Amino acid sequence: MTLKLGMVGGGEGAFIGAVHRIAARIDGQWELVAGALSSDPERARSSAAALGIKRSYDSFAQMAEAEAAREDGIDAVAIVTPNHMHVPVARAFLEAGIHVICDKPLASKLEDALALEEVAARSGKLFILTHNYSGYPLIRQAREMVANGELGRLRLVHIEYVQDWLTEAATGKQAEWRTDPARSGAGGAIGDIGTHGWQLAEFVTGETPAALAADLTSFVEGRAVDDNAHVMLRYASGAKGMLWASQVAVGNENALRLRVIGDKGSLDWAQENPNQMTFTRFGQPKQILTRGGAGASEAGLATIRTPAGHPEGYLEGFATLYREAAEAIRAKDSTGVLPGLKDGLSGMRFIDACLRSSQDGGKWTELGG
Amino acid sequence: MTLKLGMVGGGEGAFIGAVHRIAARIDGQWELVAGALSSDPERARSSAAALGIKRSYDSFAQMAEAEAAREDGIDAVAIVTPNHMHVPVARAFLEAGIHVICDKPLASKLEDALALEEVAARSGKLFILTHNYSGYPLIRQAREMVANGELGRLRLVHIEYVQDWLTEAATGKQAEWRTDPARSGAGGAIGDIGTHGWQLAEFVTGETPAALAADLTSFVEGRAVDDNAHVMLRYASGAKGMLWASQVAVGNENALRLRVIGDKGSLDWAQENPNQMTFTRFGQPKQILTRGGAGASEAGLATIRTPAGHPEGYLEGFATLYREAAEAIRAKDSTGVLPGLKDGLSGMRFIDACLRSSQDGGKWTELGG
Amino acid sequence: MTLKLGMVGGGEGAFIGAVHRIAARIDGQWELVAGALSSDPERARSSAAALGIKRSYDSFAQMAEAEAAREDGIDAVAIVTPNHMHVPVARAFLEAGIHVICDKPLASKLEDALALEEVAARSGKLFILTHNYSGYPLIRQAREMVANGELGRLRLVHIEYVQDWLTEAATGKQAEWRTDPARSGAGGAIGDIGTHGWQLAEFVTGETPAALAADLTSFVEGRAVDDNAHVMLRYASGAKGMLWASQVAVGNENALRLRVIGDKGSLDWAQENPNQMTFTRFGQPKQILTRGGAGASEAGLATIRTPAGHPEGYLEGFATLYREAAEAIRAKDSTGVLPGLKDGLSGMRFIDACLRSSQDGGKWTELGG
Amino acid sequence: MTLKLGMVGGGEGAFIGAVHRIAARIDGQWELVAGALSSDPERARSSAAALGIKRSYDSFAQMAEAEAAREDGIDAVAIVTPNHMHVPVARAFLEAGIHVICDKPLASKLEDALALEEVAARSGKLFILTHNYSGYPLIRQAREMVANGELGRLRLVHIEYVQDWLTEAATGKQAEWRTDPARSGAGGAIGDIGTHGWQLAEFVTGETPAALAADLTSFVEGRAVDDNAHVMLRYASGAKGMLWASQVAVGNENALRLRVIGDKGSLDWAQENPNQMTFTRFGQPKQILTRGGAGASEAGLATIRTPAGHPEGYLEGFATLYREAAEAIRAKDSTGVLPGLKDGLSGMRFIDACLRSSQDGGKWTELGG
Repeated sequence: MTLKLGMVGGGEGAFIGAVHRIAARIDGQWELVAGALSSDPERARSSAAALGIKRSYDSFAQMAEAEAAREDGIDAVAIVTPNHMHVPVARAFLEAGIHVICDKPLASKLEDALALEEVAARSGKLFILTHNYSGYPLIRQAREMVANGELGRLRLVHIEYVQDWLTEAATGKQAEWRTDPARSGAGGAIGDIGTHGWQLAEFVTGETPAALAADLTSFVEGRAVDDNAHVMLRYASGAKGMLWASQVAVGNENALRLRVIGDKGSLDWAQENPNQMTFTRFGQPKQILTRGGAGASEAGLATIRTPAGHPEGYLEGFATLYREAAEAIRAKDSTGVLPGLKDGLSGMRFIDACLRSSQDGGKWTELGG
Repeated sequence: MTLKLGMVGGGEGAFIGAVHRIAARIDGQWELVAGALSSDPERARSSAAALGIKRSYDSFAQMAEAEAAREDGIDAVAIVTPNHMHVPVARAFLEAGIHVICDKPLASKLEDALALEEVAARSGKLFILTHNYSGYPLIRQAREMVANGELGRLRLVHIEYVQDWLTEAATGKQAEWRTDPARSGAGGAIGDIGTHGWQLAEFVTGETPAALAADLTSFVEGRAVDDNAHVMLRYASGAKGMLWASQVAVGNENALRLRVIGDKGSLDWAQENPNQMTFTRFGQPKQILTRGGAGASEAGLATIRTPAGHPEGYLEGFATLYREAAEAIRAKDSTGVLPGLKDGLSGMRFIDACLRSSQDGGKWTELGG
Repeated sequence: MTLKLGMVGGGEGAFIGAVHRIAARIDGQWELVAGALSSDPERARSSAAALGIKRSYDSFAQMAEAEAAREDGIDAVAIVTPNHMHVPVARAFLEAGIHVICDKPLASKLEDALALEEVAARSGKLFILTHNYSGYPLIRQAREMVANGELGRLRLVHIEYVQDWLTEAATGKQAEWRTDPARSGAGGAIGDIGTHGWQLAEFVTGETPAALAADLTSFVEGRAVDDNAHVMLRYASGAKGMLWASQVAVGNENALRLRVIGDKGSLDWAQENPNQMTFTRFGQPKQILTRGGAGASEAGLATIRTPAGHPEGYLEGFATLYREAAEAIRAKDSTGVLPGLKDGLSGMRFIDACLRSSQDGGKWTELGG
Repeated sequence: MTLKLGMVGGGEGAFIGAVHRIAARIDGQWELVAGALSSDPERARSSAAALGIKRSYDSFAQMAEAEAAREDGIDAVAIVTPNHMHVPVARAFLEAGIHVICDKPLASKLEDALALEEVAARSGKLFILTHNYSGYPLIRQAREMVANGELGRLRLVHIEYVQDWLTEAATGKQAEWRTDPARSGAGGAIGDIGTHGWQLAEFVTGETPAALAADLTSFVEGRAVDDNAHVMLRYASGAKGMLWASQVAVGNENALRLRVIGDKGSLDWAQENPNQMTFTRFGQPKQILTRGGAGASEAGLATIRTPAGHPEGYLEGFATLYREAAEAIRAKDSTGVLPGLKDGLSGMRFIDACLRSSQDGGKWTELGG
């Protein structure tokens, strides 16, 4: 009944690999049976042993081939490597006929991402990008409310995703690869967290900005990538927006916030307290909507595990993507609301446009694509 | 590597059974392999099948016997029945030499609870009571801070656990058994949620009130148990407290809040936003402590799965108890900080004292025990 | 056009005298022209000079007599002395035919307060007690909403008024007289702030508890009056309540909060952020009502000076009482919603019942009166 | 002892005139004795009568001349007309040797503002611009903390000033002149509220951006001025910023917020709850600083009227400017921290640069000046 999952990356000490494993377990839809958890075969093996994973491989290529050949091979692979490896690994598994669940951003370079599109299409397999914040129940509700016109015509989209963990020249495995353009891509904060904000806004509004003006900064001396991004947005519909991504915003842990404002109403949601969202109909008192509480919409209720007042968090939002991935695979269906290649490419175009704009002195720049 | 779990109660439509199952999965320490999920054998079987549980039993007694006899029998049983069945089921499994993880409150009657004490002692097996709120990282930190004297000598303990789901004469499976004295016990709100608040305060402060004065009310006509409880508390140490438990507090979902105030500092934590807690040292600015953030204590850090700013919630707190249960079983150790029989008996004495006080017109009443 | 105000008490270094003077000025309805600002004539004179007050008296008795005799004598006197002087001063001015605006609590002893009743009735003059928190616009709205039945039948009233300024054995003029039974009355926290909470609840709900059980404590060694009070309340209507007043609640500055819960809805308001209040209709999302904002009621709008989003605070709430006092005097009308002798006597009975209950071990005690 | 104040504008129905009058009264430093309250002499007279103002003039020119000639003439004039009249009125009074307290923005056109500079310098009189938000105690403290280096080297400045009252094509006196370029100036939201945010950031940080890129929008059909402004900022120091001003941000009443982030710490303050501000030292728990509470700085304490926990609001912040104006006039001193012509000119340059940038497609534009 459960589906079989493999994992590439995510060996000892990795943050996001552990998150994927918990997310996969929460709803009991997946069993983790195979892995190439590190590019260092020794570490891959010891990590697999520590986690009780039966089949450990020395490389992802070997794993793709071997799993494809087994009758009880994995149904899907979770890719949790540094960014520059996402595309080669995804390609290998898609070509081997195995569904892919990939961490974001899609790639370290736009060209790599584009190349993947054809591979994915040819494979007929699912490609799911774990933009996990779109798994939060109130984000599902926000998307539904916008689609139902409860905000009227959209005018303003304000996105903040600010942290402070790179305020100083940081050390440690996480900080190291996330600020190394070779592994992370040319975008620093915009790639690592800006793409999350970008995708979340797209997910909720259903619109993608047509142009942007970006002012990227590296505040910490010697840092090779941006650690702060100020971006203004213009939508084809006439809506306008602002996006602020920062890893040097002292006093912020993981402060992702989305405000969407139309001519009839507005929504305001913040990731650090994800079980509530405010909604204002113009001219009426602001309402506090809660996950699963009074006023919860169908889409919001479909993703909850506990009643209102019993907070769900980051891991549950992530788990929703894994549950929906299992459902999509079983249904041999498209990914439904699940983020996928389209989101990944949009994110890469966002990074690319930010870099072009910023290098051009902050000029307004078309998104392209 | 994983331990084997059985479950009694928790068939289709049950709330807390599903919570226990997720909690048991989150950290990958348990596999659910057996169950007597309903007192109705038909429903037990169909529920087990739907959940992919291999061994379904017609009764808990049959299950205790059969599992004890198997070489690959369950390591522990999770009891998630209505309250009046906790003791008989626990007794059967303890006597069969199987560890017990039991939902709260311990029993529907104090006598039943007391009877269990000897059984448990004789069995040499663990009895864990899932007072899940004590699994929250910041509650662990609060306990540590109090023990370390960061609040000074305790003066005041204020506990609120208020909901509104029974504001009207409710219907539905949950409302039905929770307001039926035969199944739930003579305490309504005090038993269902008051005991949580009581235990949480004990857990954090390390002190148990010596006397209380309680004013229990049934606001909804025809309701056989209290739906609101006002209680004043006196500690042997000279500290004083108030406890408010309500299921008719319109505008509250699951608002458990604990404030502990000493002569040097104070803490304030609320379950609905469990990833932050305020701490004030007398004469200094209030601080916002976050789960895993700056100022996190060792005890708080020991239980987290994600970094600061990535909210963990109700299910993760619950899961911590399951993880620690697995660790305790493996270590053949006592339960450490895990709530157990002692907490359960304290809760029963709390209910009993509230009922006695209230029936006596709200008179101050010794806890006994 | 402006009315003429005198002041007794409120010399240099006094807190509440300065507050009354600002409150009287804000709406331009009063001119402060006379004073007996201190019982020490020297200090009275220098204080008056510093404030530009034209007529300074050596004693309140002299002032009452002289002002009553002048054609341009004061219309009203503001009494801002320590509590034990409220009644003698009020009596002198009422008997001289001068309206009285008196700080709370009404007296240091219940007998004194009762004696004033007849004096006031005979005088035909207004007696206004500055329970200033009832001047906040959202409190006016809360009262109106309760009266209009928007909360349904009241079930629960929860009052907190907690501070921490007396956490340690305090020194200073303010701390000194407020903890001296001879000047402040036998009630410490219950008299100084508990009466505010009590009056606010009465003001909003229109109901007075019929009985209470009180547990008063002096946490600080050597303190002659209570610094913490836990009180449970019973209303004749069947509603229940809790009141917590504290001056040792570390981490709280001036945290007055009122929650009123009925069978159809509930309100929650906190003095430290007085420009918003939440309102929940059972089964609907919680609303944030703002002073002057969407959903503001007539009574709320009648008292505001600035539009929504331009916060008004403590002084404006206080000023509303002065404005309404001027209006009442001009209209030769009763005091309307203004708190007066009735509120003062209720507060004295509250203190008295708390003391009797607490001395009797916390027994339930009738209010009397 | 009190100073004598005159007023131009602020007749019946005007919002800001009433605010100035209350602000001038709060600290008892001013007496309002003369006015030209409307350009319509009839309305001027009836307004003056209603307010008890002794000397009413038919025109500001007449008033300047007459008051300058009197021995007991006004010490200062408060200008509360629509924006286009600020400069002509200010010029008349300065030239008559009368101090000026003028509402913001300084002018409707940059040229007019520049012309005033020389007039003011020649007059030797004070010119105070009521950027009232700089009167809030915690804003004074923020300024002091930045100056003392508690935030380290500044990196980021984020300013929001968003309202929703012009979400629809509005009617009414206020909406009318504030959206009419002839009276309000070419800037809509940026002039009316953007300048407040701009000035507040300058006041707190002590730095003025060197360049900006602005995207101004009129969302409401037929509106002649911007109702939403997105602006990115660059400081000469290398700091960066964003400013969002909006009058169509549904769900916001008067949401002015300032965040200042350095490499060692950060501050976050919001006008609608002005009695608290958060402060984070990098790597330490966030602190909640309160007006007058623990951690209050000298500059913050210097402006408060009530102790911590007794909220002061908009009117008190405004009143602080009037009190300081009186002190400056008495001391024949410069304006100290009071905002003046320099702030006004900076605001005009901000509007001008926004308009130039936006007309140029959102290009980065030097501030000039």
